Amino acid sequence: MQFGILRFGRSEVSGGVIGVDLGGTNLRGALFSEDLDIGRRLKQPTRRHEGGEAVIGRLVGLVNTLCMEQGVAIEDIAGVGIAAPGPLDVSRTMITSAPNFPDWKNLPLKARVEEALGIPVVLENDANAAAVGEFARGAGRGARSLIFLGLGTGVGGGIVLDGGLVRGAHGVGGELGHMILLADGPLCGCGNRGCLEQLASATAVLRMARERLGAGESSALIDRDDLEARHVFEAAGEGDSLALSVVDRMAYFLGLGIVSLVHTVDPEVVAVGGGVSESADLFLPRVVEVVQERVFPAARGRVRIVPAELGDAAGMVGVAWEVLKSVQ
Amino acid sequence: MQFGILRFGRSEVSGGVIGVDLGGTNLRGALFSEDLDIGRRLKQPTRRHEGGEAVIGRLVGLVNTLCMEQGVAIEDIAGVGIAAPGPLDVSRTMITSAPNFPDWKNLPLKARVEEALGIPVVLENDANAAAVGEFARGAGRGARSLIFLGLGTGVGGGIVLDGGLVRGAHGVGGELGHMILLADGPLCGCGNRGCLEQLASATAVLRMARERLGAGESSALIDRDDLEARHVFEAAGEGDSLALSVVDRMAYFLGLGIVSLVHTVDPEVVAVGGGVSESADLFLPRVVEVVQERVFPAARGRVRIVPAELGDAAGMVGVAWEVLKSVQ
Repeated sequence: MQFGILRFGRSEVSGGVIGVDLGGTNLRGALFSEDLDIGRRLKQPTRRHEGGEAVIGRLVGLVNTLCMEQGVAIEDIAGVGIAAPGPLDVSRTMITSAPNFPDWKNLPLKARVEEALGIPVVLENDANAAAVGEFARGAGRGARSLIFLGLGTGVGGGIVLDGGLVRGAHGVGGELGHMILLADGPLCGCGNRGCLEQLASATAVLRMARERLGAGESSALIDRDDLEARHVFEAAGEGDSLALSVVDRMAYFLGLGIVSLVHTVDPEVVAVGGGVSESADLFLPRVVEVVQERVFPAARGRVRIVPAELGDAAGMVGVAWEVLKSVQ
Repeated sequence: MQFGILRFGRSEVSGGVIGVDLGGTNLRGALFSEDLDIGRRLKQPTRRHEGGEAVIGRLVGLVNTLCMEQGVAIEDIAGVGIAAPGPLDVSRTMITSAPNFPDWKNLPLKARVEEALGIPVVLENDANAAAVGEFARGAGRGARSLIFLGLGTGVGGGIVLDGGLVRGAHGVGGELGHMILLADGPLCGCGNRGCLEQLASATAVLRMARERLGAGESSALIDRDDLEARHVFEAAGEGDSLALSVVDRMAYFLGLGIVSLVHTVDPEVVAVGGGVSESADLFLPRVVEVVQERVFPAARGRVRIVPAELGDAAGMVGVAWEVLKSVQ
């Protein structure tokens, strides 16, 4: 069997396409039809502490299992897309630096999986992949441009303009968690201050709540030893004034971030996803208000800020779409 | 004679192309060869207080004069590009809002000039046009992507990715003076706080210098009644510590703005132009230092931050290039 890299361009395949999401906690995969209808899905722990080679072995196993279970021969699959954490190298063959995968640096992920499976592999940064997924089949259907913001422990982002990802000259395009909004603000893991990630993520919500509890403000949250961001959102939902104020502040900064993005790439749609977006009802109306008040008049009331629609499947949909595009 | 709009697509023209820069102070035009070599240039006061129709009349006159002087028939010109201030409507037929041209709102600039001249007219935002000019024939020659930052009284910007301008879904792409960098910072004319324009422009330099003089700091600038930004740069060049510190702070914020842009669209080249860039020697090395220290490792030491090369011709070169692209 030839290596996958030699098989690009084949158009006779009909068994669909596989999307894999290589997450810090879970490794997930799905078989899609050539129309990107999602079929069988599998999920297993990533167990990244076992090291890169072991995880690659499990990833290959997951792809094989998906095919076997569905009675599809691996050579009939158009290819495998992998949504991977952290920035990739410019040629998208490996992960260059991901805090969750310290031993993956310079591990030739694409080549290893292509060798093992014998079909084309497309690698994409996870938030970029989610942006493509939302653009192709989610909140951006019918639009020409979309920005995805994935709010979780950190903030991931992806920019789709004219149907294509903005990957950037050095592979760091769409790293929107590291736009600087408050240059004298809280220190970020990246070394800068006041990055969007420090102002509008689960981490930010938790930090702001703790700061205000520490300052002696009263709140239903004061009795919790195990405070997490979701507790803050829950308390906000129940009308707790400290929690409401923290969520409002997070929404304000998220709104300012989107204002900056409108004045930069001016997308048609901004899709807000990630774990924090489960509480979108509590903050998205405020985000929309901040943005529509503050963007240039030509965009005011026009830029669409909406919840992402595909949940944790967005990345898999996006990489499956990228595979189909690459082999067509 | 048919209206210009009907004549797009013609390829038999050989008299070159005209680029016009419609500025708040001066109206400038140049005749370019089809290879974008700049030929005869003309300049006259805009006299915008006389109103939109009068200025359009002068713009048409300037184009006719350029042709006559060079012995070229107007119908042999590929078209006229106009670099115009302020955001344009999405179809680029008029200026939607420019502080310097309040009576131009909804004035059909493109149609009016096409009717008067009978050849195609391409309208472009001035900073976008400068970005295209620098990309095609200036600091970005050979690159795939470029951001132009024009530092003057305000900050204009333009983004070229994969050879095309990022105009945005609502025509406000590249309004980089209104990226928010210091959310609790100085109030901007756009209504927001801490926009790049308030931190890294002639206006910003002047404001920072005045604040510090007002606080009683000693400086050679203290005796000036007529303080302007250029005096601050001059004093910095002579080693005045207050002036040096103001210029350093401006460079710091410009650097942070570029960091945000690298983490958003990640361009190959950032070209810094505008009147303030005449003092680039005094601040650009510090900007480069800030950016290379603070961007993601994959871009560190790689993103090129350079002075713009075309000076006040950049916009004319850019619109001339756009005309040639549109008629090819």
